[in-house]
Amino acid sequence: MNERIKKLKEKIKEHELSGIIVSNPINIRYLTGLTAEGTLIIGRYENNFITDSRYIEEVMNIIKVEDELIVQNLKNLKDEDYEHIFLRDSHVGFEENYITYAGYKELKAKYKVDLVETESMIESLRSVKDEDEIECIKKACEITDNAFNYIVNNLKFGMTEKQLANKIERYMISEGADGVAFETIVASGENSSKPHSEPTDRVIKQGDIVLIDMGAKYHGYCSDMSRTVFVGSCKYEKEYNFVLDQQKKITSSFKAGSNIKTVIDLAEKDYEVDGYEIMHAFGHNLGLEVHEEPALRNKEDSYLEKNMVIAVEPGVYDIGNYGIRIEDTYLVTNTGVEQLTKSDKSIIVV
Amino acid sequence: MNERIKKLKEKIKEHELSGIIVSNPINIRYLTGLTAEGTLIIGRYENNFITDSRYIEEVMNIIKVEDELIVQNLKNLKDEDYEHIFLRDSHVGFEENYITYAGYKELKAKYKVDLVETESMIESLRSVKDEDEIECIKKACEITDNAFNYIVNNLKFGMTEKQLANKIERYMISEGADGVAFETIVASGENSSKPHSEPTDRVIKQGDIVLIDMGAKYHGYCSDMSRTVFVGSCKYEKEYNFVLDQQKKITSSFKAGSNIKTVIDLAEKDYEVDGYEIMHAFGHNLGLEVHEEPALRNKEDSYLEKNMVIAVEPGVYDIGNYGIRIEDTYLVTNTGVEQLTKSDKSIIVV
Repeated sequence: MNERIKKLKEKIKEHELSGIIVSNPINIRYLTGLTAEGTLIIGRYENNFITDSRYIEEVMNIIKVEDELIVQNLKNLKDEDYEHIFLRDSHVGFEENYITYAGYKELKAKYKVDLVETESMIESLRSVKDEDEIECIKKACEITDNAFNYIVNNLKFGMTEKQLANKIERYMISEGADGVAFETIVASGENSSKPHSEPTDRVIKQGDIVLIDMGAKYHGYCSDMSRTVFVGSCKYEKEYNFVLDQQKKITSSFKAGSNIKTVIDLAEKDYEVDGYEIMHAFGHNLGLEVHEEPALRNKEDSYLEKNMVIAVEPGVYDIGNYGIRIEDTYLVTNTGVEQLTKSDKSIIVV
Repeated sequence: MNERIKKLKEKIKEHELSGIIVSNPINIRYLTGLTAEGTLIIGRYENNFITDSRYIEEVMNIIKVEDELIVQNLKNLKDEDYEHIFLRDSHVGFEENYITYAGYKELKAKYKVDLVETESMIESLRSVKDEDEIECIKKACEITDNAFNYIVNNLKFGMTEKQLANKIERYMISEGADGVAFETIVASGENSSKPHSEPTDRVIKQGDIVLIDMGAKYHGYCSDMSRTVFVGSCKYEKEYNFVLDQQKKITSSFKAGSNIKTVIDLAEKDYEVDGYEIMHAFGHNLGLEVHEEPALRNKEDSYLEKNMVIAVEPGVYDIGNYGIRIEDTYLVTNTGVEQLTKSDKSIIVV
């Protein structure tokens, strides 16, 4: 059987469930490789994928024998077919963080089972990557590095933030990305002080700071990198070095088994001592989605595992004036972290 | 007060609610223009937008006095502040089709109110467009037409589906689109028989049918158009004309007040008589999202209204062989529909 489904079945057994109804398309893709719309039902013994006529052909072409998947056409299923998938009132997991309240009521009425919250059971499997996934992420990181290199060499005064963002996105696609991992951020001058600024028609000019947050998607997998560059001259050397030091400090404390909370607590203290405000989390896991769990926060204890992929992104912001963020994608190993995005982090003045 | 919020408040009163908690970012954007992450709380008297430090500056710049919006920073709110927004156990609407089951439980615990399903209250306001929205959609349609024209003139044998899709997307962005309304579909040869095919590395060659489904986004608003063109020669004249006739028949029956069900029932009969299978709905409303309610289906009575914007997209498919779809975006008027995408629909052989 497909390794990912096998691991999920072990979890289902552990949680004493009769099965799980998987509705989140990202989780379906992770478990089966399918991108077709539909519902995946993993039972203790049998697995079903319910889809519609639009996708049947495509699905039959993609699934493999080892997926052990029975493909059902929605239009052939009667009410009682749903009721017979599980025993009435049996405990069945559902994705409480994906299914809407209306969807929950619908599932309950359709399958006539007792729906049980699964606390991100599949997402926790996803957080540790296998070799194929790591390869895709490395390729997405390589595309990102190439695009950054291209853009630094082609950044001209007089371009707008939007034009620059478009240039980056087109370059990544031309380099083989499926698309972008998220809408590229190019924030110049005072716009850089908004951590989630959207590119505007502001023209980039002499003396500007330019914050670029970008990522590619390759075979569905994301990269995430931020760089802050300076036009003409750099007025924020001290602040830049503070951010860079924070990234170094955090990542040099990370390895498989690290308690994220402990490391982030220390970073927060440094911010306090140096008088910078913390405007967003220090990072996050990533994979098929650019933001996955766990986030790099200090709310509760949570631990890094080998082959997690994380983005570490400290930043300092002075609202209305400037913002600096440095972010890279890293692979967690037994002895530390391996940096996967590799663009220059010394102060770049263009 | 802002017209959209005013209309929502009337609905809240009609439904005897104390207010509504708006979490769907598209609905928040529609009501306030804000794209920042946060929660919008529309009460009978007071409106709050709860956001975090990342967005405060941006939000203060965008909101207008007539929005009558109190902006709150998440980090300054204590548990009891949430409990004081509404009277305990009062009836408050929530978006049951957006909020996850886990989110529902969280809202209930936080606000200590009785949450009431609102049956797409805001989405039904959104389905009828105002002048500004129609202008944006028209612009998105114009960009789509220009891109199609460009691509027909630049379609070369030897290009892959992916390359063609990238070319279309890059052109739309260069013409001023914010981005794409959805991932562009380019499906050639037998791939065209999958209504929701993703572009592959298949090379486009002599004798191919090429189905293109594309849309731009302009100031957040979508367009949606499909064309099916032929390379070298057209083997499917009869089928093409059937699809084109269906689009003409459906749209000539539509105007403000039309019962969608009645019109779609007739189209389905034609499909049956001519022996074609129906593989997807005949269309949908669109606006800030490319698929909005109502869909063009015949499940229950539903009526067109003046200034709804709809995509009408009949198609015929022979699995494993070919597919033909023709789709345009239309504005519903009192006397009929106005076609907003205007690309040539005669049989195009390149």
